[in-house]
Amino acid sequence: MSQTLAELGEDALIQFIAETFDSNSSIQVGIGDDCAVIQSPSNLHVVTTDAMIEKVHFSRETMSAAQIGRKLVAVNVSDIAAMGARPAYGMLSMCLPEDLSVRWIKELISGVASEAGQYGFSIAGGDLCASPGPVFLNLTLSGTLVASKPILRSTARPGDGLFVTGTLGTSAYGLRLLSSGQHVNDASQSVAKHRVPGAQLENADVLARWEGCHAMMDISDGLAIDANRLAKASSVRLTVNIDALPLHEELEGLPDEEAQELAIYGGEDYELLFSAAGPPPIKATRIGSVEAGAGSVNWVRDGRPYELLNNASYRHFKTNSATQESK
Amino acid sequence: MSQTLAELGEDALIQFIAETFDSNSSIQVGIGDDCAVIQSPSNLHVVTTDAMIEKVHFSRETMSAAQIGRKLVAVNVSDIAAMGARPAYGMLSMCLPEDLSVRWIKELISGVASEAGQYGFSIAGGDLCASPGPVFLNLTLSGTLVASKPILRSTARPGDGLFVTGTLGTSAYGLRLLSSGQHVNDASQSVAKHRVPGAQLENADVLARWEGCHAMMDISDGLAIDANRLAKASSVRLTVNIDALPLHEELEGLPDEEAQELAIYGGEDYELLFSAAGPPPIKATRIGSVEAGAGSVNWVRDGRPYELLNNASYRHFKTNSATQESK
Repeated sequence: MSQTLAELGEDALIQFIAETFDSNSSIQVGIGDDCAVIQSPSNLHVVTTDAMIEKVHFSRETMSAAQIGRKLVAVNVSDIAAMGARPAYGMLSMCLPEDLSVRWIKELISGVASEAGQYGFSIAGGDLCASPGPVFLNLTLSGTLVASKPILRSTARPGDGLFVTGTLGTSAYGLRLLSSGQHVNDASQSVAKHRVPGAQLENADVLARWEGCHAMMDISDGLAIDANRLAKASSVRLTVNIDALPLHEELEGLPDEEAQELAIYGGEDYELLFSAAGPPPIKATRIGSVEAGAGSVNWVRDGRPYELLNNASYRHFKTNSATQESK
Repeated sequence: MSQTLAELGEDALIQFIAETFDSNSSIQVGIGDDCAVIQSPSNLHVVTTDAMIEKVHFSRETMSAAQIGRKLVAVNVSDIAAMGARPAYGMLSMCLPEDLSVRWIKELISGVASEAGQYGFSIAGGDLCASPGPVFLNLTLSGTLVASKPILRSTARPGDGLFVTGTLGTSAYGLRLLSSGQHVNDASQSVAKHRVPGAQLENADVLARWEGCHAMMDISDGLAIDANRLAKASSVRLTVNIDALPLHEELEGLPDEEAQELAIYGGEDYELLFSAAGPPPIKATRIGSVEAGAGSVNWVRDGRPYELLNNASYRHFKTNSATQESK
């Protein structure tokens, strides 16, 4: 039988963590003191935090430990990117059941470290504790701005076009495949995107340096919820053309309306939703436009107004689907 | 019956949170965007993170929601203080069961806000999600240095005296009273300290401005573990005189050795342990001295060497007491 966390003990685990997370020049004091000490390139920074809990955000049956660690990093980097910033350092809390295998935990930590390394940052510190049940993970991520100002969701302007990167509904389709109980083809890009979404850091970087981009956010809870948030924050009326929503080729076998519903309501794509004056300097799809208004979204399909279903997107505390793992 | 979280919904809860946490000048963008945007007075800062989980760190039977919220803040402020810094802003994650009452959650949030306000900072952002079981809380706290340098645990010098603020074993005694199943006297200061420890921010401030203080940390896991950590980090040999350990008057009824064991092994006092050249400019008790060595602690009682019990202090993943709630 493989070694458990209770057998390994806290000190040995902390030693493994300290060896796995590289330090770098911005982390003056890393793991081992009361706090980490950080030297930032500027005194203006952004910060986000995200928790991931077993049986809510992930299942140990459908995702490897490394994938869970990588996803935890990617969803936080996505928030940092969407502000027009780059990640600088992270603080990681892990609350783990005592009977968890050491191999699983080391894979988790290595997954966090490798994904963080891809985005050019490391973990400066954290907290480790016993969980009475599910695995509980929390990452707080700090970042530095690419330009002199952050890109907010509250600054879309009438006359802007509305754009998204990548494809929508892909992660939700991947989750559906995983939840179907059928054998999953590991070559499925939808499944891969659900497991480890990646973050649009390079695209966000270009947009942050381009003055035409007026408002930006990442799509984590699905376009239905997130477009509404952007409209409300900016006090504008958005028109979204459902027929223009970019779909992954793996959704091509689905009836049109079913695929579009995944794109409208599906969460966890972690693509960028942004408003811009003129064509953006990155590959993106124009899905609508920004008009003067008071915080609403006007959905159009086949040239006609389209009524969204109530509560069809994912909401914590008001879930409509027991199988949904999204945030 | 009182309203549950599932009935209230996420949006209404976020609105309550945004109204409860004051913004301040350092928080340029607070709750509501992908990230918070922070303007720091300097580009050097410290950061810590701590999780608190129901049934591991607290029980809803023995602590009110407001006390749990206050304790979450205090244990993080204690880490910030122990670096010679003041808290600047926090990021709060709350993972809550759907059937939790709204009244309890609002009390929790108000507890966080009031304790943070006492220490002069606010919550800049966070994450909210459903928990499949226990309440999970995580606070990441950032702070700014009082002086030009942090005070580390790795810089104790041979010749220093070893000091602690306040009393030791008090929180552990409070936990024992709470765990005894007997009626608890709410006037007990030990119980109050276990529930909401407070942080030694003012004392730490004075020490951070005083050049005589060479090394400092907070005592969270008990003196046995934490003195050992300071000795190892500084590569020195500490001598601790057990008879000098400061005990709260509520422990006076206990046999000497029993009270001293609480002071040695009990966690969660959140007092400061520091090494200093000469008498410190705050009220503190000298409990020992720092000598050249290689990272060990020499315990003395009645003038004779004293062997510590193995594993008598609290360790996550190697617990020796099912009733212990400490970190």
